[in-house]
This record gives sequence, C-alpha cells and structure tokens, in this order.
Amino acid sequence: MTHHDIETPENLARRKHGQEVLSRIDGHAGADVLAALADTNPALAHHVAAYSFGDIYDRPGLDPRSRQLVTLGVLIALGGCEPQLKVHVNAALNVGLTPAEIREAILHTTVYAGFPRALNATFAAEEVLKNHTPPKAP
Amino acid sequence: MTHHDIETPENLARRKHGQEVLSRIDGHAGADVLAALADTNPALAHHVAAYSFGDIYDRPGLDPRSRQLVTLGVLIALGGCEPQLKVHVNAALNVGLTPAEIREAILHTTVYAGFPRALNATFAAEEVLKNHTPPKAP
Amino acid sequence: MTHHDIETPENLARRKHGQEVLSRIDGHAGADVLAALADTNPALAHHVAAYSFGDIYDRPGLDPRSRQLVTLGVLIALGGCEPQLKVHVNAALNVGLTPAEIREAILHTTVYAGFPRALNATFAAEEVLKNHTPPKAP
Amino acid sequence: MTHHDIETPENLARRKHGQEVLSRIDGHAGADVLAALADTNPALAHHVAAYSFGDIYDRPGLDPRSRQLVTLGVLIALGGCEPQLKVHVNAALNVGLTPAEIREAILHTTVYAGFPRALNATFAAEEVLKNHTPPKAP
Amino acid sequence: MTHHDIETPENLARRKHGQEVLSRIDGHAGADVLAALADTNPALAHHVAAYSFGDIYDRPGLDPRSRQLVTLGVLIALGGCEPQLKVHVNAALNVGLTPAEIREAILHTTVYAGFPRALNATFAAEEVLKNHTPPKAP
Amino acid sequence: MTHHDIETPENLARRKHGQEVLSRIDGHAGADVLAALADTNPALAHHVAAYSFGDIYDRPGLDPRSRQLVTLGVLIALGGCEPQLKVHVNAALNVGLTPAEIREAILHTTVYAGFPRALNATFAAEEVLKNHTPPKAP
Repeated sequence: MTHHDIETPENLARRKHGQEVLSRIDGHAGADVLAALADTNPALAHHVAAYSFGDIYDRPGLDPRSRQLVTLGVLIALGGCEPQLKVHVNAALNVGLTPAEIREAILHTTVYAGFPRALNATFAAEEVLKNHTPPKAP
Repeated sequence: MTHHDIETPENLARRKHGQEVLSRIDGHAGADVLAALADTNPALAHHVAAYSFGDIYDRPGLDPRSRQLVTLGVLIALGGCEPQLKVHVNAALNVGLTPAEIREAILHTTVYAGFPRALNATFAAEEVLKNHTPPKAP
Repeated sequence: MTHHDIETPENLARRKHGQEVLSRIDGHAGADVLAALADTNPALAHHVAAYSFGDIYDRPGLDPRSRQLVTLGVLIALGGCEPQLKVHVNAALNVGLTPAEIREAILHTTVYAGFPRALNATFAAEEVLKNHTPPKAP
Repeated sequence: MTHHDIETPENLARRKHGQEVLSRIDGHAGADVLAALADTNPALAHHVAAYSFGDIYDRPGLDPRSRQLVTLGVLIALGGCEPQLKVHVNAALNVGLTPAEIREAILHTTVYAGFPRALNATFAAEEVLKNHTPPKAP
Repeated sequence: MTHHDIETPENLARRKHGQEVLSRIDGHAGADVLAALADTNPALAHHVAAYSFGDIYDRPGLDPRSRQLVTLGVLIALGGCEPQLKVHVNAALNVGLTPAEIREAILHTTVYAGFPRALNATFAAEEVLKNHTPPKAP
Repeated sequence: MTHHDIETPENLARRKHGQEVLSRIDGHAGADVLAALADTNPALAHHVAAYSFGDIYDRPGLDPRSRQLVTLGVLIALGGCEPQLKVHVNAALNVGLTPAEIREAILHTTVYAGFPRALNATFAAEEVLKNHTPPKAP
C-alpha cells in the first residue's frame, strides 16, 4: 500500500477534509495559496491541507483562537514569513481575535523576539487590518 | 534628567511594579532569574522586570492566557530558549492553561516551525509538567 | 468523521507504516524518540511517524541519500537541533553516506550558515561518527 | 498606579526623551518609523522610543559607535530586517562609522552568519550608502 | 606578508580559480552577483569566489549534486534568502537535479523547518523553474 | 592546480598565518577549538584559521575591538552559539573591551533580538567574565 500517494481515496478524503477546515478558518486567502501550488507542487498543496489543517488545526485540544495566538507568535519570531502572517492575521480575525488584540500580541513579541520582528509584523498585519470590515453591530 | 539611570525613584517604582507582575505570573521561577542577574548585570535584571513585565505583560489589552500562548509560540520558534521555555510553561500553568493545552500548543507549532523545534520544546516542557502538582479539586 | 483522531484504523495504519519507514532509516534511534513521547504527547509521536516518515520520507521522488543531505542542511542551519542532528547523522550512515561525506557536508555549510553552526554540528556529529562501526570489507 | 499607561506624565516624559535620543542618532529615518506606527499601534511607537532609545541606547556604558556595531551584527544575523538595517546604517554614519567600516563589518559577518546574510545586508546597506553625502572637509 | 590583501598574485589566482568554479556551476547568475558587488565591496566579491567556490565548492569530497542538496536545505531553513535560493535552484539544475527533485526537496523541508519556509522557497524556486529550458533529448 | 588542497605550501602558509592571528586574539581558547577538530575534520580546522582569522579578521579596515562588537552581536542573535560566545567574550577582553562594556553590549541586544537571547548570552558570558583576571594596575 502506498500511504504517500496523494491520490488514494484515503488521501483524497484527508485532503478534502483539510480544505474544509482551511476554508472555515482562512476563507479564500488559504484557498488562494493552495491554488497557487496546484500546478507546480500538488503534493505540497495536499500536505498543507491534509496535515496542517485536517490533522492538526482541527484537533479539539485547543480552541481556534488559542491556535492563532500560537501561530502569530511562531510566524513573528521566524521572520521573513510576511505572506503567511497576513493569511493568519486574517484567520485570527475570523476566529474572533480583535484588531486591538492582534496589535497587542505583536507588541508582546518585542519582549521575546525584539523590535525589528515586531515592526515587520506590524507593517504586514496592518495591510490586512486596514482592509478588514468589522462585524456589524447588531 | 537621567531616564536611563535604574536607581532613580521613578525607575525603582517601575522595577518594583514589574517584579510584582513577574511574581504574580511566574512565581519564584522568574524571581530566580532576576536574582541570578543581580550581581553581574543589574540593568538587565531591571529591564526584564520594568519593561517585560511592568510595561508590557501588565497591559490590559490581552489576557494573560493569550499572552502565554504567544510567548510559547515565539520561544518554540526561536529555538535554543529551553530555560525561558521552562519558566513560561510554568507561567502558562499559573495563568490557567492546562498541561494538555500546552502539549497541544507545542504539537501545533510543528506546522509552522517544524518537528525538531517542537520536539526540543516537548522535552523542556515535560521537565516542568511532570513536577506540576495539579490544583486540588474543591 | 474524525480525521484528527490518531486511534482510527486509518491512522493506526498510517502510524504503523511510518514507524516501519522510520525503523528502516533510523534504526533504534528514531524509535527511542517516539518511545520518549509515548506517555506525554502521543499525538506528537503519531505525527512524527505518520507525517514525517510515512507521508514524506517514503515518497519516491527523492532517494534517501538525497533526503538526508537536505535534512542535514536544514538541521545545521536551524541550530539548536543537536539531538535531531545526531539521529540524522546515524540515518545518513544507514542510507549510504560515508563519514567523510558527512564531514564534507558540514564543512560545506560554513559558506551559507557560518562557522559557529558548522562547529556545533561537527561536535554533535562526531559523537555518532566515533561510535559507528564501519561496514566490514568483503 | 498604571505603569503600563503610555499617556501618564511619567511615560510622556520617557517617550519625549526617547524621541530626542532617536532624532539625535537616526535623524528623520527613525522619526518616520514612529510616525508610521502612530495611528495603528501607538504603544509600539511609544516603546520603540521610550525603551529602545530612552532607556537603552542613551546609557553611558557603551559609546554610540560601539552600539551601532553590535546592532549591525544582530540585524545582519537575524535576516529579514532590511528596513531596520537601512535605518541603522544611516545611524552608523551619523555616529561616526565610515562607509568603508560599515562594508568591512558586513564582510566580517560572513564568518559567523554565512555569505547569504552578508550579501542581503550589502544590498540593503548600499541603498543608504550611495545616497550619503560625506561630511565636507574643513 | 599580507595574506588578507586581495590583490596579491596568490589571491588573484585564488579568485580567478573560484570564478571559474562559480561559472561552471552557476553560469551567469553567480557572475551577476559578483559584478553587483565589484564597485562597492570588492573584498566580499573576492571571498564569495575564492572561499565559497574555489576553496569549498571545488573540493572533491562531495559531488556537486550533493552539495546543492545541502545548500538548498540550509537556504530554505535560514529564510529570507530568496535571492540566493534562486541562484542555487539554477545551480541545482546545472548539476543535474531535476525540477521534480528540487520540488520534492522543498516538500521534504516541511518536516524540519515547517510549512512557511517551504512555501516561501516554492514561490522563489518556481520563478527559476518556469524559465528553465530542459536539456534537449539527443 | 588544486587550490582546495589544504596541504599545498600556499595553504600551509595561509593556515600558519591564520593560526598566528587566532592566537593573538583568542589565546589558547581558539587553539583548543582547532585542536579538537584536527583528527576528525582537519579541513574545517584549516578554514577556521585560514579564512576566518587569516583572511578576514586580520584585515586592516576595522579595528579588533570593533570586530568583536560585531561578532558579539551576530553570535547573540543567532542563538545556540554559547561555546563560540565564550571564546569571543574572552577575545573581546583580549582586544580591550571591559567586562562592563561586554555586559552593556549584551543588554543592548535586548532591543533587537529580545530578552531570551540576551539572557542566554549573559549566562554564557559570565562563565568567562568571572574567571577573568583584570589587568594589574601599574
């Protein structure tokens, strides 16, 4: 049996499930990344969906808001991940973090990763936050 | 005026406040780090307390649980921060994260920072988690 | 359906397959890592086996020798991954790299990651290389 | 008392002092960064000024030339900090480092951080160095 | 004697040799990098050629294909090295790695360096791979 | 001609020169590192001496004190380079930096690389600084 083959029925189901989790959290931003990979590296696209979202993100042990806080911390610290940071700032808004909380989280990273990483994260994040339509008041 | 002088009344008050925040969150683990610095680099000890805890951690814009999730993400991604990770796993327990949530947060970082960083974080975190007495049921 | 549940028959099969790939490549060193995780973070152990080895390492698109060369490059550049580096130096020997080639690969990284990372990698690698019994001449 | 409130008289004074140190060292380049943050993350702008420049940079224990050399080393090694590197190449010129010394410092980092970081730093630094009017001879 | 002087006959010979190795492996892409440095940091250009290619790359202890696999691993893990990654994807093609193997190598790094680094590497690599004319069949 | 052969008369002379520079700056600490490499990776030992010290460190374009400040910045930012940091704290003392200046340089890095890197650097540096006999007063 070929577990690594991304076109088995089992892996098609894993990928489809992962894509659903991805859409729920990232909306079209995540789907756009997968589409950009589809022609040239479909296996990478598969594993972004199947592993990152289907296997890990969907696990019940940590709520989506908490997962996004960890994700923001990792992406800011790594540096050079501005495209991924923008996707995940959008996801953070989708799972309930407010723009003020996201900015506070970035400020918080100055302590552990220094100001340059936090400044780069700010400029990337604001590209998303300025375009974000806040939810209408009821 | 010498804003940088850590012994002005203003800076003594900032440091004292920071130490209180630090004790509230990290218990003795944080205080031990400051004590280790007191003789050789007191200015570094001052700024750990005054800036990291008094100025940043104490801000109301993000709850302590959320701050710890960001902190865990940053420390795991940086790598080589096992001593700080242990202090902050302890802090994470103090502010209400469960051992299961901390382990899930570490698993979550495999997606963004890879397995080696998550494995190193696991081995460091478990040194704290195995010693942690869970709060007694009422 | 719960794709994230590591105890479904599907995920048990994925894990078993990954463990076989891991044993083939890393021998007991990899199995020891999984055993160390089994009690405290079984999901992390599952994904090391199922994703890293079953899904990725076993793919036919790149031979094991080449995969180990990429792995050595990543681990040396990341820094702070000495435990993983030792496991993968052992794996490199298992898939046919010679001690001389491993040392040359480390020297090669000085160009791209600088001397400190290469020196740390050398000291970690030599702990494995000195214990390695070379294959007997026929 | 609210040490973390950036609008207390004490923190206004700290910020004003930090802005003066920043202007002295970075000229308008640093002020531009703060202005870019003012609307969206004023607390981050405050701490760049109050902590980085007022509390740390202004300390007498190390001369500004030496501080810039350390800063260049850190920013080159981190990678992905090209915007900050440009600000600090300009600052390095302001505190008396020559273009030749800055280029030599970048070359020096090849030993410890490898050639790619040094090449990226070179291309960022030259954008500043080519625009720099050398001080007039007396 | 001034070993550090890049214009001694000895160092001219080292540089010329390194440039030949560089041309053999990287074609015009590597030469373009050296040309970009020639006016502003000729010593850095010298050492890229003399050390990286003449002293290290040309060593017989590891074949060029293997060196490129290590190089790809290091550059992907470092992050922020997209310009260098493009040069070395081109070099990888020159020394016999196929586009499929390069894509597989990038996928392989997800295990050790996480998905964001692999995604950034993919987008940089595809800029080279899409322009690559495959060798004609005989 | 084999420029990469570390046993040519030319490379023997380069290595000898580099070892002299290394001894002048690092004293026995640097020589100990080379000795540790001599049996297993003599080419790495050669290039530490010939390239890092003979080719780069000995260049007249930047004074040794300035080189050590850049080196400290890079090593602190990289993280996981505690052994190299200790060697270079010793070298920093040898070229005229005072313990107070070294501690201040470490504090300075909190701004750019965050507190955990500075704390790790402090604990490594103090192992050297506590053993350092200050020069006798005349």
